[in-house]
Amino acid sequence: MSSNHRPGFTGSTLDREDLVRTNPERLAALAGSLSARLLALDGIDPILDDQGLLTWKSMAESDPGSELIFLGVQDGKPRFTEVRPDLPQGAARSRAIFRMLDILPPEEASTYAAARSLIDWHVRHGFCAQCGTPTEIFRGGWGRNCGQCKAEHYPRVDPVVIMLAEHEGRVLVGRQPAYPPQRYSALAGFLEPGESIEEAVARELHEEAGVKALAVRYVVSQPWPFPSSLMMACVAQVESDALTIDYTELEDAFWVTRAEVAAVMNGEAGAKFLPPPPYAIAHTLFRRWLAET
Amino acid sequence: MSSNHRPGFTGSTLDREDLVRTNPERLAALAGSLSARLLALDGIDPILDDQGLLTWKSMAESDPGSELIFLGVQDGKPRFTEVRPDLPQGAARSRAIFRMLDILPPEEASTYAAARSLIDWHVRHGFCAQCGTPTEIFRGGWGRNCGQCKAEHYPRVDPVVIMLAEHEGRVLVGRQPAYPPQRYSALAGFLEPGESIEEAVARELHEEAGVKALAVRYVVSQPWPFPSSLMMACVAQVESDALTIDYTELEDAFWVTRAEVAAVMNGEAGAKFLPPPPYAIAHTLFRRWLAET
Ligand SMILES: [Zn+2]
Ligand SMILES: [Zn+2]
Repeated sequence: MSSNHRPGFTGSTLDREDLVRTNPERLAALAGSLSARLLALDGIDPILDDQGLLTWKSMAESDPGSELIFLGVQDGKPRFTEVRPDLPQGAARSRAIFRMLDILPPEEASTYAAARSLIDWHVRHGFCAQCGTPTEIFRGGWGRNCGQCKAEHYPRVDPVVIMLAEHEGRVLVGRQPAYPPQRYSALAGFLEPGESIEEAVARELHEEAGVKALAVRYVVSQPWPFPSSLMMACVAQVESDALTIDYTELEDAFWVTRAEVAAVMNGEAGAKFLPPPPYAIAHTLFRRWLAET
Repeated sequence: MSSNHRPGFTGSTLDREDLVRTNPERLAALAGSLSARLLALDGIDPILDDQGLLTWKSMAESDPGSELIFLGVQDGKPRFTEVRPDLPQGAARSRAIFRMLDILPPEEASTYAAARSLIDWHVRHGFCAQCGTPTEIFRGGWGRNCGQCKAEHYPRVDPVVIMLAEHEGRVLVGRQPAYPPQRYSALAGFLEPGESIEEAVARELHEEAGVKALAVRYVVSQPWPFPSSLMMACVAQVESDALTIDYTELEDAFWVTRAEVAAVMNGEAGAKFLPPPPYAIAHTLFRRWLAET
């Protein structure tokens, strides 16, 4: 059982070159260069080539009504994506995207995640939250500003804690009603203003399962571009294995041993549940926990 | 040198009771109860009592034009704060708040941090970013919704990475031009869409100091309510101690030994710089790093 499983949506070789964002002349030169490439998308979903990798096209193929986003430089090529005027607000997750994530390597998914989160944010943030005026894209697509009240708005990233409660060698798994049949995962929830990671883990475990965290240890993180979360995976020692499940959040939850988790992750016949997919951080969290001595 | 220094803005004993937020009758009953208390504020700054603790007042003292926020229940008392109609947008950090943080215990600062971040968010987010229409407070103050396009908006928390680059037993400290004289700290920056914590640490160290991270380990986190960051502190082993400083971000940076950091944290005469205050996570990070064997 490998402990160096690469977390989903990580490992992009894109150099974000943030200094370019604030340099309009340099930005225009890169966008106009012959080597510049535009991410090929179908709506907000990627278009994979016959190797299962992201497809890039000529800048000439961008929509004249689009707002351009500078993603960075990769393999010596400036890379862009665009916010097309015809994109729907609040794009639903298609079935197709999850089939593509089954084959897209994490480092390619990582580049795509930045593009998807940014596009989705622009589509849903065309107006100034401070005064209601339409805003303009700026900083190479890494923000919007308001000509009326001068507010600057930056893309959001929503921190989420996801955690295994641990008690006497067993960990707690649960399922939400929307999960595919047999799928169980770690518990999770959004971190709120005024909380540390460790406090958010303790609160979520208390709210969802009625267990009291005694000590929380951080394990690993990854982005989750639906629409723009930062997943922070932890293991929390808890006081007791007595559960009080919040059935408005969870459909079911139970304790599993190390051998039972190993059977799940090895896909053995008779395993107690189906594991999260490799691009979900719960998958990495289970593998890291199994690899602990 | 203690390693169990409590991170700033953590340890509130407030139970957030999130189920109350979606129960308008229960919320109204709590707000109308005789035991309900309202956080006393001067603008967005706290008002401390003669013990140096937060002051709470009667709900009858709330402004009739205010929006109420349910903070949770503490010591059996429902606790609220309010978004007054006369609050300025984008409140600057007063000098007074930092003097108060020097004496406010972290668990009290933690309760205040939730209130301050929420109030500031409401003041700057009165309009729907998706359609420009004025929004209404909902969920007991933990969101705003749009009657026009039906979008729901939630308070933001901005993840920030703050890190010590480590090379052969020394760590890198730097100062921004806005720091008080002699103050140095760990390097820091906002995590961006499409990044893990580990990737954001590596990018920031590369951008600000030109060093290459080989391995990143998470240490500790805390909120920072100016206006609403989640500070995530890490230590990164780096390949070399050769620096390429980005002087648009940093005024100065240099490597310090464990003995030099200990002298700083102990306030010894001749120490190489002044340490961050105890409520800043860099303070906790230095202490934790010193306590490592
Ligand atoms: Zn505005
Ligand atoms: Zn709206």
